[in-house]
Amino acid sequence: MPHPNDPKLKSFIDVAPDSDFPIQNLPYGVFSMPASAERRVGVAIGDFVLDLAALEAAQRIDAGAPGVFAQPSINALMALGPQAWSKVRGRISELLCADNPELRDDADLRAQVLIPRKDVRLHLPIAVAGYTDFYSSKEHATNVGVMFRGKDNALQPNWLHIPIAYNGRASTVVVGGTPIVRPQGQLKPPTADVPSFGPCRRLDFELEIGVVVGGASRMGARLDAQQAGDMIFGFVLLNDWSARDIQQWEYVPLGPFQAKAFGTSISPWVVTREALEPFRVAGPVQDPKPLPHLQQSGANNYDLDLAVDLRAAGAADYATIARTNFKYMYWSSVQQLVHHASSGCAMNVGDLLGSGTISGPGKDQRGSLLEMSWNGSEPVELPGGLRRSFFEDGDSLRIRGWCQGDGYRVGFGEVEGTILPAN
Amino acid sequence: MPHPNDPKLKSFIDVAPDSDFPIQNLPYGVFSMPASAERRVGVAIGDFVLDLAALEAAQRIDAGAPGVFAQPSINALMALGPQAWSKVRGRISELLCADNPELRDDADLRAQVLIPRKDVRLHLPIAVAGYTDFYSSKEHATNVGVMFRGKDNALQPNWLHIPIAYNGRASTVVVGGTPIVRPQGQLKPPTADVPSFGPCRRLDFELEIGVVVGGASRMGARLDAQQAGDMIFGFVLLNDWSARDIQQWEYVPLGPFQAKAFGTSISPWVVTREALEPFRVAGPVQDPKPLPHLQQSGANNYDLDLAVDLRAAGAADYATIARTNFKYMYWSSVQQLVHHASSGCAMNVGDLLGSGTISGPGKDQRGSLLEMSWNGSEPVELPGGLRRSFFEDGDSLRIRGWCQGDGYRVGFGEVEGTILPAN
Repeated sequence: MPHPNDPKLKSFIDVAPDSDFPIQNLPYGVFSMPASAERRVGVAIGDFVLDLAALEAAQRIDAGAPGVFAQPSINALMALGPQAWSKVRGRISELLCADNPELRDDADLRAQVLIPRKDVRLHLPIAVAGYTDFYSSKEHATNVGVMFRGKDNALQPNWLHIPIAYNGRASTVVVGGTPIVRPQGQLKPPTADVPSFGPCRRLDFELEIGVVVGGASRMGARLDAQQAGDMIFGFVLLNDWSARDIQQWEYVPLGPFQAKAFGTSISPWVVTREALEPFRVAGPVQDPKPLPHLQQSGANNYDLDLAVDLRAAGAADYATIARTNFKYMYWSSVQQLVHHASSGCAMNVGDLLGSGTISGPGKDQRGSLLEMSWNGSEPVELPGGLRRSFFEDGDSLRIRGWCQGDGYRVGFGEVEGTILPAN
Repeated sequence: MPHPNDPKLKSFIDVAPDSDFPIQNLPYGVFSMPASAERRVGVAIGDFVLDLAALEAAQRIDAGAPGVFAQPSINALMALGPQAWSKVRGRISELLCADNPELRDDADLRAQVLIPRKDVRLHLPIAVAGYTDFYSSKEHATNVGVMFRGKDNALQPNWLHIPIAYNGRASTVVVGGTPIVRPQGQLKPPTADVPSFGPCRRLDFELEIGVVVGGASRMGARLDAQQAGDMIFGFVLLNDWSARDIQQWEYVPLGPFQAKAFGTSISPWVVTREALEPFRVAGPVQDPKPLPHLQQSGANNYDLDLAVDLRAAGAADYATIARTNFKYMYWSSVQQLVHHASSGCAMNVGDLLGSGTISGPGKDQRGSLLEMSWNGSEPVELPGGLRRSFFEDGDSLRIRGWCQGDGYRVGFGEVEGTILPAN
């Protein structure tokens, strides 16, 4: 049996070369049918969803624990551990393979387990145990630092030593497509003497990748890089919606709170770590050398193209406003996870770790409106003469991501959200 | 039937006048018997636990939803809402009342449902959905501010306008009695050129009260003071263990992370909001007047005495090192919850909100070693000539809390923890 990542592998299902979901990908999601509230675990393949719960009911797949696919999240599947993850993915690949008649030639079974993707409703794929947001792009941290503290003090002294992070709010992590209500909050522009309460005026996004943790660690224990790497189940696109004006007034000294608590959107499809293996690349040189517990060898970043599209309220189409790549991140996902557990903090199945805003070295590679519009001083130009420094009501933001292989791409689909007026 | 808070109410169970658990209290906890892993919801009364699951099985109590007491947390009970909370507490009070023969005169039933407290094992009473830690004592914020920024800039400009908070780590909230492993982390004392990784040298506690949220709010919705008040199920003692040296190096600009992630201890007993009603008092005058959404009328603080006891490693007994009161808090629990949801942040059943360190105006009313020892410059004197600026391995810290009534007290028991060496 060929390896599921083999670029030559073909499915009997027709997959366009620019599809995000060839047989080399097989990302997990949670879906329901229009007439039912029941949620099940599925895998995206071309324009279809493979219903794993139906496949298990038909006794064509066995994860080693019954019922893990007939669940409203992939947490039960993740809890089975890395060996089961590989085994299940291998079996799905085998079933979808062009030269395997098992499913290909069984029309009844195909009708039961393969559902057109346009017919399903996609849900939050994970039960989010804890949500943590890192700050690991040197370009982003530098841009923000230059804007607010000047060029000479752009990076804080700890930034090159610690993958800086804060605990986010898990209760408002939602699946892409969920509308985002413009938050209200305390605002105190520099010109005001006292704060007032009202709708955010500087509403922004942050382009991020989220790590989905599939393993657990005990309170009081730490993780080494090998253990941390093995605990990563997969990755999602993540939009960390941000209220810049609320943040500016509230964040000293304990960090962002309500400025980031009103919504975080993730893509419905979780791309597995295994599917991204062929796209590993070295990260930036880390100088100074990280402390021993944060050191890694090998290629620890991913060559993952990212695009940000904005559709202004009333506009017909999205316009691409930034293109960047996950490979630019200074701190790797493994280093983030090692740091997260370094105090003895218990990690859980379903923990979600945002990478932090992904900005690249170029001006057109910035992952937030704050940076693109340089704090509002250089509004982003959109088709039709429209301009945006921050979001207006009715604007939609979409993030896409994919790893480009030779003749195929392992993609994430998209994460999208539209701003509703404050209520 | 008299109100469950009636000071004249007596139980047929003997309760000492200085017991924390008279019939006017009836706090909820989760317990198991030594021979079984099964967890159930119970209520503390004198030296006994009333087994509510057994009481339901005997058809003597009905919460309106079957099985809510045969659970490993009180979340299912909380999810029934304030009317059910009152009804259940009223029924428990009635059953335990001295002049009600129902349980008093039924020796078989008593043997089934009343268990000596010393025979049970107590567990974390809530499944913690999200953990948030506030910073709402003006005395504490001022003390810390004076220490690190000097007298003139002690309070940050936002502090009098916002109940400042950060998201904490829910995965390491543990029940009192759980040992705390000294965390390791990145340390960079002012004298060092570069950080190093090692055991925390400035390990501290923070005396807090935790609000247990028993209701939920939708993403995108806000709460007014009435709604927020109704969602508060009860309160616990809370110790927010803190690594001051890790915090100092990591906290700019996104707040504390690993410095607070290694452990937070709460008392096993959740005292209900209803039981604390007789002890409401006005809080401090708030000047400037809070913004309209944060305004409240009436008495919104609680006259709740607090004591902090330290037992140095090897010492035979605890020594009381501080006494203070929850009534000093500048921001009330209701204001905290209103602020928490103000951006549209969804609140969930089982959310835990730490009050922030509770310090009073006096020098002997400080709620952390950092303040008591004034950042290590004035070590705390203990019996036998021992001194502590921060914890040493083997030290134990205990917090007690109670509302003093006329001839009885509504108490929280204690939350205790012992420091184990770093591993």
